[in-house]
Amino acid sequence: MGNMSTLQSFIAGRWLGQEAQTPLHSALDNKLIYHTHAEKIDFAEAVHYARKTGVPALMKLDFQQRAQRLKALALYLMERKEELYEISHLTGATRPDSWVDVEGGIGTLFAYASIGSRELPSSNVLHEGPAMPLGKRGGFSGTHILVPRGGLAVHINAFNFPIWGLLEKFAPSFLAAMPCIGKPATATSYLTEAVVRMMMDSKLLPEGALQLVIGSTGDLLDRLTGFDAVTFTGSADTAAKLRANRNLISQAVPFTAEADSLNAAILAPDVAPDDPEFDLFVKEVAREMTGKAGQKCTAIRRIIVPESRAEAVGQRLRERLAKVVVGNPKMEGVRMGALASQDQQRDVSERVEMLARGNEVLFSARDGFKPVGEGAEGGAFFSPTLILCRNALSNDAVHDIEAFGPVSTIMTYKDVDEALELAARGKGSLVTTLVTKDPAIAAHVVPVAAATHGRVHILDREAAVDSTGHGSPLPTLKHGGPGRAGGGEELGGIRAVKHFLQRAAVQGSPTMLTAVTGEYVRGGAVKESEVHPFRRYFEDLEVGHSLLTHRRTVSEADIVNFGGVSGDYFYMHFDEIAAKDTQFGKRIAHGYFVLSAAAGLFVSPAPGPVLANYGLDNLRFVAPVAIGDTIRARLTCKRKVDRNRTDDKGRGQGVVAWDVQVTNQNDELVASYDILTLVQKRA
Amino acid sequence: MGNMSTLQSFIAGRWLGQEAQTPLHSALDNKLIYHTHAEKIDFAEAVHYARKTGVPALMKLDFQQRAQRLKALALYLMERKEELYEISHLTGATRPDSWVDVEGGIGTLFAYASIGSRELPSSNVLHEGPAMPLGKRGGFSGTHILVPRGGLAVHINAFNFPIWGLLEKFAPSFLAAMPCIGKPATATSYLTEAVVRMMMDSKLLPEGALQLVIGSTGDLLDRLTGFDAVTFTGSADTAAKLRANRNLISQAVPFTAEADSLNAAILAPDVAPDDPEFDLFVKEVAREMTGKAGQKCTAIRRIIVPESRAEAVGQRLRERLAKVVVGNPKMEGVRMGALASQDQQRDVSERVEMLARGNEVLFSARDGFKPVGEGAEGGAFFSPTLILCRNALSNDAVHDIEAFGPVSTIMTYKDVDEALELAARGKGSLVTTLVTKDPAIAAHVVPVAAATHGRVHILDREAAVDSTGHGSPLPTLKHGGPGRAGGGEELGGIRAVKHFLQRAAVQGSPTMLTAVTGEYVRGGAVKESEVHPFRRYFEDLEVGHSLLTHRRTVSEADIVNFGGVSGDYFYMHFDEIAAKDTQFGKRIAHGYFVLSAAAGLFVSPAPGPVLANYGLDNLRFVAPVAIGDTIRARLTCKRKVDRNRTDDKGRGQGVVAWDVQVTNQNDELVASYDILTLVQKRA
Repeated sequence: MGNMSTLQSFIAGRWLGQEAQTPLHSALDNKLIYHTHAEKIDFAEAVHYARKTGVPALMKLDFQQRAQRLKALALYLMERKEELYEISHLTGATRPDSWVDVEGGIGTLFAYASIGSRELPSSNVLHEGPAMPLGKRGGFSGTHILVPRGGLAVHINAFNFPIWGLLEKFAPSFLAAMPCIGKPATATSYLTEAVVRMMMDSKLLPEGALQLVIGSTGDLLDRLTGFDAVTFTGSADTAAKLRANRNLISQAVPFTAEADSLNAAILAPDVAPDDPEFDLFVKEVAREMTGKAGQKCTAIRRIIVPESRAEAVGQRLRERLAKVVVGNPKMEGVRMGALASQDQQRDVSERVEMLARGNEVLFSARDGFKPVGEGAEGGAFFSPTLILCRNALSNDAVHDIEAFGPVSTIMTYKDVDEALELAARGKGSLVTTLVTKDPAIAAHVVPVAAATHGRVHILDREAAVDSTGHGSPLPTLKHGGPGRAGGGEELGGIRAVKHFLQRAAVQGSPTMLTAVTGEYVRGGAVKESEVHPFRRYFEDLEVGHSLLTHRRTVSEADIVNFGGVSGDYFYMHFDEIAAKDTQFGKRIAHGYFVLSAAAGLFVSPAPGPVLANYGLDNLRFVAPVAIGDTIRARLTCKRKVDRNRTDDKGRGQGVVAWDVQVTNQNDELVASYDILTLVQKRA
Repeated sequence: MGNMSTLQSFIAGRWLGQEAQTPLHSALDNKLIYHTHAEKIDFAEAVHYARKTGVPALMKLDFQQRAQRLKALALYLMERKEELYEISHLTGATRPDSWVDVEGGIGTLFAYASIGSRELPSSNVLHEGPAMPLGKRGGFSGTHILVPRGGLAVHINAFNFPIWGLLEKFAPSFLAAMPCIGKPATATSYLTEAVVRMMMDSKLLPEGALQLVIGSTGDLLDRLTGFDAVTFTGSADTAAKLRANRNLISQAVPFTAEADSLNAAILAPDVAPDDPEFDLFVKEVAREMTGKAGQKCTAIRRIIVPESRAEAVGQRLRERLAKVVVGNPKMEGVRMGALASQDQQRDVSERVEMLARGNEVLFSARDGFKPVGEGAEGGAFFSPTLILCRNALSNDAVHDIEAFGPVSTIMTYKDVDEALELAARGKGSLVTTLVTKDPAIAAHVVPVAAATHGRVHILDREAAVDSTGHGSPLPTLKHGGPGRAGGGEELGGIRAVKHFLQRAAVQGSPTMLTAVTGEYVRGGAVKESEVHPFRRYFEDLEVGHSLLTHRRTVSEADIVNFGGVSGDYFYMHFDEIAAKDTQFGKRIAHGYFVLSAAAGLFVSPAPGPVLANYGLDNLRFVAPVAIGDTIRARLTCKRKVDRNRTDDKGRGQGVVAWDVQVTNQNDELVASYDILTLVQKRA
């Protein structure tokens, strides 16, 4: 590191920047804490390095291996989290605020490590099947694969979550084998720099997997192609500006925006002031107004309540807000910290003035605001501010003007449809909370609200025990809303990884599709296995290894015995009179008998590498099996995933899915399914 | 209809246009055939009508009902297809060319009717589960739903497929409950007008579901919001122009582009001139060069062959091209028709000149080109043209300049990786064909090619019997490529419907999620059914109706008997010595016994409304069942879909999925799955 107060970019494998440029100040007391660097970044070099060093290094690993790296990285950072908390205070964040950023960010790495391990193959081709026959003679099928794009991802982030903001985008794009160039908002870029330094020190990332830009992105966007990707988190205005970049447009560069929006909380008409849900509503609103000093894209800006409840809600919120101690978050009892900078403080102040015009101010700095802590008078503190708007249907400002601080407006509605109309006036938001006791209200409200919101959070006493809250995007759930919220999708589990991959349709013979996807496609050539495939270790098994079993003639005695063992005396199997009336016209064997008999046909009884059959998917009983029919099974190794796991005795094992086709004496398919097994490794 | 030769727009439920404006000419003989109309369209009215009339009318139907409408519409159009073929000739198309447009278009309606019926619910909320627990106490879960966006879809199309172009976009957006404004390219808009007239005459579409713009889109795009959607098919330049629209950008309006691209066909090095695959390659290239006179976004523009095969490929292609009779497609023996207009003819001619520069022309108009048919000298005919480029790695023109006609360039490679490099020089294409005999080559080439192509078509002798060809997008497979090809995704089965829906994450108690999604979410309140749920007719069943069965203690005799019936003597069930060594430390019951016994517990033996258990999904054996354990099952109605189907006796039936949880004496889950049944309707 150069001058201690000069932040550095990490470009093409080198830390860069000695000379100070823009000063950055502490949010708590406005003291100078860092500078950005003055040296210009050579973005041609950065892009070239990502393409030529980063992509090949990432592609040397497969999806499963990258997932393992994410997990190792998450563990490494978690051990060092206190260093990050220490720096995070300077942004004005309380410990709970920082938790969202620091441990929320690291938690997202853990989550994507686990999603990758669970849902991705041990190769670089993700098969999004099932394959479908495209002709009548079985020679031609189609399916989809998702593959790494061969390009890089530029992640441009907002100032409010300098760590989470980077990591929640880095994790899925890293799994997708995209080198990443992270560009944090300058105001709090020192915290991003700190976490990137840790990531580099860990030596866990392949060369070129991550670069960091402190300061401007210069001509970076002009150097991208349609195989790269850009994500942006920040204001709607900046999103629109970036989206209009000529190069992004002409090259059709995928661009995802997640923009601030005027999120709502709706109190449903069924909730009375003495219901626990009423308290939950007030608490949630107060928490979302003051958490991170209201500087969250997901914060509740609009509090939509029945006319008859406006007074009670206002009163209860005033009481709560009055108790919020604002000041230096290191001091005991402080519940709300500072805005990120004095610039933000001025900006929020101006917008509050616009919002208040024509409305009633229920709570503001005039209600005895005094931030605590040394130097706090110079800090970027702002009082929680609550406004009441009684004519929200005819007031545009309350739906359009976002004060990015602890500021929210109560607005009143006559009936639920008016509440929905008000919520939609945000023109697209990230999230809305609905507080109700009534599932029927939820069933009516949520699908309508879902059209204009990226996430809908339903809160009642049952949910409250576990609720992760209105404001928290989760790795497994989609984050991002339509319209004003940017129209993007982030997170949402495996969806986010797929956003960074390229989907292609593939057509060809089943044999070719098997080779390409790494998954056995029905109709493709099989390898008749010399030894029983269940007797092969994981390493020795190949996709396509197959066993055609001996046959078994199904008798009336089988049906009788199966009924006796299972207790299943359904008329289709046991009542000759009623069975005549069915589509089959006679008694047929139990479907589960066919399944069990097939297992009897292909099982290999002695201990062997197949450790357990832990599940079964996509079972379809395609045709009936009648008394006198003769069945057999074909068992084919369909898919192998090496999750690099070991059992409790340290023996390696992999996941193997098997395609099972049960046919009758006419070679007609009678049952079709996949079975899932764990198979031991040789070594 | 007004003046017979003046085309009309269909706006706000009325046909509009009497006064002639731009003349349109036949591609065959340049005769004047139609005019566009001079009257200006009021796009404010069109958009208002779509929002206020179209959306509510579409939302009165559910997904299943809209799928039924699509099917009815497809049947209606299919009966009248000859009228469309008749008009299609005027565009210069042969009967096979028109087949792609007319029956390909109608076929896409059929396909989406079927996709909708199979994969969508009988409501307007599509649950994209599974729901996931988000806390430890079971009070809070999360999932995703997709809902209609409440906006309209503007579909802007190219001149080459005036019917298919509209219908392939209309079908998925209609399923998604989006009213559509179709805007065909003016040159061939008379054919789109004809099919829209038929669609209106059918009276099968809800009011406002479809509007048609003949001529310019005026200020239409400036009137859209983030809840609408725009799709575009055409040139990359026009795509970029539209994408840069300020309103589309500032409102984050979803925009999908499918642009012409320089698609390739690769002859792999393993194919020798005497292999059937060599012939397949030549045939496919010749067909794609001349089909629709080369005016397909997917046409093969670049023929990538091993250096050693260039001569043979060139020779065989010359022979084929020489046999192609060009002229009026109504004449017998004519294999290739005209370009769409004289403008196109001029444009292609200019581009051929640019392409030929520095390269060898293997076939062109100089090889005896003479289109047949009356007036053909005035028609927009163009000779098949084949160019050979021996230095394609250093020639930009052959990868960048698209002559939108029967024009293609042979380029040579040294090894497979060079072939891939050449293919990627298209900077993103819709499709590439790989001809090879070798699955290992396919496994290497396809994942790399997939990064830069929307579709990869593998051709060999096995696939050839059924192949739908390089140039044909299919409803079930994704259409659209990255980069130059526009970066969009169309079709791909249900994916296309989802593109037009809004996805939202939903969080709340399992009871609330059940109400919202219409699917039982585990942990949610169940309705203990007074009568056995299997004895309820489809109409009387409610999601959440549930049965907790009696119990059954599993004995050693059960294992013995089950082994006898199934023939499954796996050591885990039968070998006390080996079973000691497993993770369970003792013999356990067969998983399929647990499944069968559970059926025995919840079955209702006498004939009743549950007609058949046709399948089972997501079976997981969560915990072992040992001798002495006591199991029971909970069966809960999970999902009902009314596909409006009847059995062969005319009785109505619906699809019902049941959630099954098998637990042991400690209330631990031991097995978990969904069963799928058909349930009879009362009426």
